[in-house]
Amino acid sequence: MHHLGADAIERAWQILDQIPGRATGAYSHSQGIKGLRDTIAAGIEARDGFPADPNDIFLTDGASPAVHMMMQLLIRSEKDGILCPIPQYPLYSASIALHGGTLVPYYLDEATGWGLEVSELKKQLADTKSKGITPRAVVVINPGNPTGQVLAEDNQRGIVEFCKQEGLILLADEVYQENVYVPEKKFHSFKKVARSMGYGEKDISIVSFQSVSKGYYGECGKRGGYMEVTGFGPEIREQIYKVASVNLCSNISGQILASLVMSPPKVGDESYESYYAEKDGILSSLMRRAKTLEDAFNNLEGVTCNKAEGAMYLFPCIRLPEKAIKAAEAAKTAPDNFYCRRLLNATGIVFRSWFWLWADSGHLAF
Amino acid sequence: MHHLGADAIERAWQILDQIPGRATGAYSHSQGIKGLRDTIAAGIEARDGFPADPNDIFLTDGASPAVHMMMQLLIRSEKDGILCPIPQYPLYSASIALHGGTLVPYYLDEATGWGLEVSELKKQLADTKSKGITPRAVVVINPGNPTGQVLAEDNQRGIVEFCKQEGLILLADEVYQENVYVPEKKFHSFKKVARSMGYGEKDISIVSFQSVSKGYYGECGKRGGYMEVTGFGPEIREQIYKVASVNLCSNISGQILASLVMSPPKVGDESYESYYAEKDGILSSLMRRAKTLEDAFNNLEGVTCNKAEGAMYLFPCIRLPEKAIKAAEAAKTAPDNFYCRRLLNATGIVFRSWFWLWADSGHLAF
Repeated sequence: MHHLGADAIERAWQILDQIPGRATGAYSHSQGIKGLRDTIAAGIEARDGFPADPNDIFLTDGASPAVHMMMQLLIRSEKDGILCPIPQYPLYSASIALHGGTLVPYYLDEATGWGLEVSELKKQLADTKSKGITPRAVVVINPGNPTGQVLAEDNQRGIVEFCKQEGLILLADEVYQENVYVPEKKFHSFKKVARSMGYGEKDISIVSFQSVSKGYYGECGKRGGYMEVTGFGPEIREQIYKVASVNLCSNISGQILASLVMSPPKVGDESYESYYAEKDGILSSLMRRAKTLEDAFNNLEGVTCNKAEGAMYLFPCIRLPEKAIKAAEAAKTAPDNFYCRRLLNATGIVFRSWFWLWADSGHLAF
Repeated sequence: MHHLGADAIERAWQILDQIPGRATGAYSHSQGIKGLRDTIAAGIEARDGFPADPNDIFLTDGASPAVHMMMQLLIRSEKDGILCPIPQYPLYSASIALHGGTLVPYYLDEATGWGLEVSELKKQLADTKSKGITPRAVVVINPGNPTGQVLAEDNQRGIVEFCKQEGLILLADEVYQENVYVPEKKFHSFKKVARSMGYGEKDISIVSFQSVSKGYYGECGKRGGYMEVTGFGPEIREQIYKVASVNLCSNISGQILASLVMSPPKVGDESYESYYAEKDGILSSLMRRAKTLEDAFNNLEGVTCNKAEGAMYLFPCIRLPEKAIKAAEAAKTAPDNFYCRRLLNATGIVFRSWFWLWADSGHLAF
């Protein structure tokens, strides 16, 4: 058991004081408790060096409900398209399907470490428009899920410029912002990138998703998270609030955790040292394991794998030998299916569902 | 501070043992932790005297997300109708609107204590079909929100028979099951009523919603609840599970609370006495306040109010005098609007939003 520092106890009282009636069992404001949103906004400011407004924060039961909320608001019919990365995290395909919209795929470039080429976005956008689909938003997952890349700041600038030019909403899945494992890369929020380009509220609409389920905290069972919604007019803001209020509020423990994630102990605080040791231990371990797995993949015959830059994923490429492909043909099954079944039978390893989305290109996602 | 009984500590360990890895910070099964669902199923059995299956339980972040889940599954287009009571709790109108369906109103009968007449259901059903709307389900809120009635068992039997005959899904909002304030009425779950009529899984589809936000517990900020889904085939069950899994799982603290709500201390347990005293204190206070308010309304000139039987609501009828109606006309405003504004200015009392749904009949909802 940890010794609880005086600063931790003081913080607990501060948080209780921020909750009307000190009642963690009561409904809160549908955007979340105001004092906690103040803390989160201050945390975003400290991270980005640009102002953040507590009224832009919507606390949610993890990031998933926030994504659904935005999809619900953005999608009017199957004629509305949402650009999504492929490979992607299946939350997005599921949410778009549930809300009756069209997923517009754009392909990440394995050759550039799963880079997001603006030329690819432009190509897919033109293609979409020619099919009579109205593009509404671009989903960008950074650090990448399931591809584990961290976008270069210059790449991010290109994406921001593209969204601004095309009037597209940027849905920035930034839940892995603490999970960066290479010294040459750094996490930059899309809002920070946009602001550093001189683009403000009136220039671009950005929604940033954050969660308590990732990072070094990983408290996924607590269902805490938020979205920061910038660059929308008051009428749209009112609609977002209306949708948020339909479920009354997110759970208060999750709200508190989200505020802690965005305001960890600071240098000089009594708890700082033990906090830092634990954080560093977890992130170092994740980094070590990612590197070990990356090396293991690249040492396997027929397998290549991009650098593990961030998030919690590796996305290796497995090239099956001619003989395996022939054996699959003889067994009247697809080569990847054949490989997966053999792997399952021989080792017990099961491929995750989104593998099937990507099977045609010879990739297997772990 | 309470002294924690040995049984409470023992229960905490039991619960921890039911959670894989004792990890309240990890994702659970998308329906909720199996051991907690076992407890809830046992609690339903004890309440109803009929079997309950833990696989029928879906734990959710309060009852609202469960309602949305069902609406998402039931509504294909604006040609699908959901029968809802009027007056109603606005969650239902909001959810139906969000999912693009049609709310089919049926009117509760104030003269019979906000009874739910099957003849009214039949009338609205015929009317709906004649408009080319496909009725899919009937929402019944018992005890009633915002009308505060408790349905008579005989009335419930009639509703079950109607749903069975018409092949309609019964969406039973039973979140106020502990809030019954009159000795002549008792809460009966719709599933129990159906089973006692001899109707099983193959005869009728019932979804029962329960929440930790009401009753004598009232822990609404914890966002705990569940739905019990019976009478659906395996293909539909799979679809319900798929929708549940899109948000990964509900928060674990809320899941634990839902299991506690359905399995409070029993006679003989060390904690029983203090538990019972607290429960009885809360429910007696609610009952006393409901009765006080009911009497106060009925003593006001021009105001009548049905008996406070259950839930947490009274729904008085206010008859405006001719002079007030004339004054409203002179001010070029509707009489109810005129009354509400005068009330607001004179007393600071604000009418809740669902008032407007019901304003045409001269009712004001508190």
